[in-house]
Amino acid sequence: MDALRARLDKAATAASVAGVDALLISPGSDLRYLIGAGGSSFERLTCLVLPVGGTPVLVVPKLEQPGYAGIPTDRLGVDVVTWVDGEDPYALVRAALRGTRVAVSDMMPALHTLGLRDAIGGEQVLAGPVLRELRMRKDASEVAALRTAGAAIDRVHARMGEWLRVGRTEAEVGADIAAAIVAEGHVQADFVIVGSGPNGASPHHSLSDRVIEAGDVVVVDIGGPIAEGYCSDSTRNYVLGEPRDADVWETYAVLQAAQKAAVEAVRPGVTCAAVDAAARDVIAEAGFGEFFVHRTGHGIGLDVHEEPYIVGGNDLVLEPGMAFSVEPGIYLPGRWGARIEDIVVVTEDGVESVNNRPHELVVLPA
Amino acid sequence: MDALRARLDKAATAASVAGVDALLISPGSDLRYLIGAGGSSFERLTCLVLPVGGTPVLVVPKLEQPGYAGIPTDRLGVDVVTWVDGEDPYALVRAALRGTRVAVSDMMPALHTLGLRDAIGGEQVLAGPVLRELRMRKDASEVAALRTAGAAIDRVHARMGEWLRVGRTEAEVGADIAAAIVAEGHVQADFVIVGSGPNGASPHHSLSDRVIEAGDVVVVDIGGPIAEGYCSDSTRNYVLGEPRDADVWETYAVLQAAQKAAVEAVRPGVTCAAVDAAARDVIAEAGFGEFFVHRTGHGIGLDVHEEPYIVGGNDLVLEPGMAFSVEPGIYLPGRWGARIEDIVVVTEDGVESVNNRPHELVVLPA
Repeated sequence: MDALRARLDKAATAASVAGVDALLISPGSDLRYLIGAGGSSFERLTCLVLPVGGTPVLVVPKLEQPGYAGIPTDRLGVDVVTWVDGEDPYALVRAALRGTRVAVSDMMPALHTLGLRDAIGGEQVLAGPVLRELRMRKDASEVAALRTAGAAIDRVHARMGEWLRVGRTEAEVGADIAAAIVAEGHVQADFVIVGSGPNGASPHHSLSDRVIEAGDVVVVDIGGPIAEGYCSDSTRNYVLGEPRDADVWETYAVLQAAQKAAVEAVRPGVTCAAVDAAARDVIAEAGFGEFFVHRTGHGIGLDVHEEPYIVGGNDLVLEPGMAFSVEPGIYLPGRWGARIEDIVVVTEDGVESVNNRPHELVVLPA
Repeated sequence: MDALRARLDKAATAASVAGVDALLISPGSDLRYLIGAGGSSFERLTCLVLPVGGTPVLVVPKLEQPGYAGIPTDRLGVDVVTWVDGEDPYALVRAALRGTRVAVSDMMPALHTLGLRDAIGGEQVLAGPVLRELRMRKDASEVAALRTAGAAIDRVHARMGEWLRVGRTEAEVGADIAAAIVAEGHVQADFVIVGSGPNGASPHHSLSDRVIEAGDVVVVDIGGPIAEGYCSDSTRNYVLGEPRDADVWETYAVLQAAQKAAVEAVRPGVTCAAVDAAARDVIAEAGFGEFFVHRTGHGIGLDVHEEPYIVGGNDLVLEPGMAFSVEPGIYLPGRWGARIEDIVVVTEDGVESVNNRPHELVVLPA
């Protein structure tokens, strides 16, 4: 809680540096980061008003106030203002402001963004660039939570042979994986990708009724949040018996080398772009550049996707506490694909991976 | 699909009537309503540009294009424009526009709302008031889907005695209910409220580790979407043996009369406010007015909460095809609460309920 109090103070300072009069934070991970409760995002406005040099005010529907009962708003120095149906919540936000230049949460629905715009006037910018300076640099408790989440998803991958079998559909396998994600310590399964055979060549393929066949390479990309709100996200690759395509082993070795090179490139002082290039160069040199169709990684924490993004052109310099995925992939349309993904944390002098399952293509019985 | 084509045409017409040059629709229920796929809402922009008098364009990350593979964009007359990391998707939206007065989806994240504002200039209003005119009036296939969803959640309530027992926690009961919501025909459980004893007096209480005791009144409010995307939402009330509080039976009878009065008030030509009043008057006359702390209902369809809202002051006149909840509640702080909720559809001359479980307080073995 003192940690939360410090976050509120730091956020107000960052807002001041960014030249805004207040942060307006709606339900979601920003709110959870700042006060410890993410709220729900129904059509009724909930908004934390964090003014520079003033008292934070949580505007919340009276109906949803019990959801914040566990938040020690007094000790956090946050005033709570409730409203009921028929009242104008935007006027309550305006009343808590001293200036009209505000930064709104990146995830705030347009319903409220425009409602606040009309009520406040002034100028709106995004709060994301302000808060990411805080959220990108994980403290020890956040890193510990990412380790817990990583270990939980590793345990699911370790059990993959229980479910991934010839003759079952991706959807059937996915349902078992989703249950195991919860059973192994997550609050819920956020995403379950089982991309078998040609479906593995679509990076965002989810699940289908395709029946898994002998010789299929299968991409399994899974994750979800643990109770503390921090997310897991890890991809491993499996093959049912001997791969159908003759190029699998050799191409997979390229991918494995690329992922290893990128992880080894991670340390304080290196740019995000350099980590991306470390993976991309290996893949391009082997002639597969055009088949690696996405960035190398994304930050992770209370959101599955957050800053920093490991992508060409991002000159952000890595610092200790930054956490992100390293997940190059090679996708051969119509045939097969693979992706290897670990979540890593930048340490004082290098890198720590919170995922520790072997990277090899795992052969399961056909 | 012809239905979808007609919806796109109607939406463009409605946009014209509203005086905007285009609708900008991000992933979510509006997108699903218009093209049959809701998309995913990651940080990469996906946006359906629906210009007045022009060709609709779906701007989508190349990575996420496979998620729209099932959409017959050709037959819908929708052009697809993809983009990759590093490109500017907002410029692609601007290029598809003829004017700069745009209506954005109510759920569009501020990240994209402000990105589009900066790229397009001009003026932004909400698309919700434009699209709600279409989405509020359900066609026969939508009403059929709501019936299917209603029957599925009724089957879950019918099985409540399997799980709701003295000595179990709300969370344990909730986990069983969530599994049954899926087993009985939903894609997922969207919400599971098990409010036992004093927790029932908090309308938005969800689940806790409170152990259910003999004499507890328990509010169970559950729902989720079926495959077609339409949602269920139904609340029933249970008591474990004889109620602990002496006022339960008499007060519950007031609530039951209030819910019945509101459902009977529903027909074409009546205002939303009148339906709200029908329930509220019964409760107020019995002296419980201050304990009914929320509106009487909300519209439902592809969203759990959508227009029309059954609330005082809403002079919207009901028409056939409108669908919403009727869910008055009485909440006695620190002691117990109850809420009865059915989803109803306005018919040509009256009302149809898609939920058909008995309204009585159900006594389960203590």
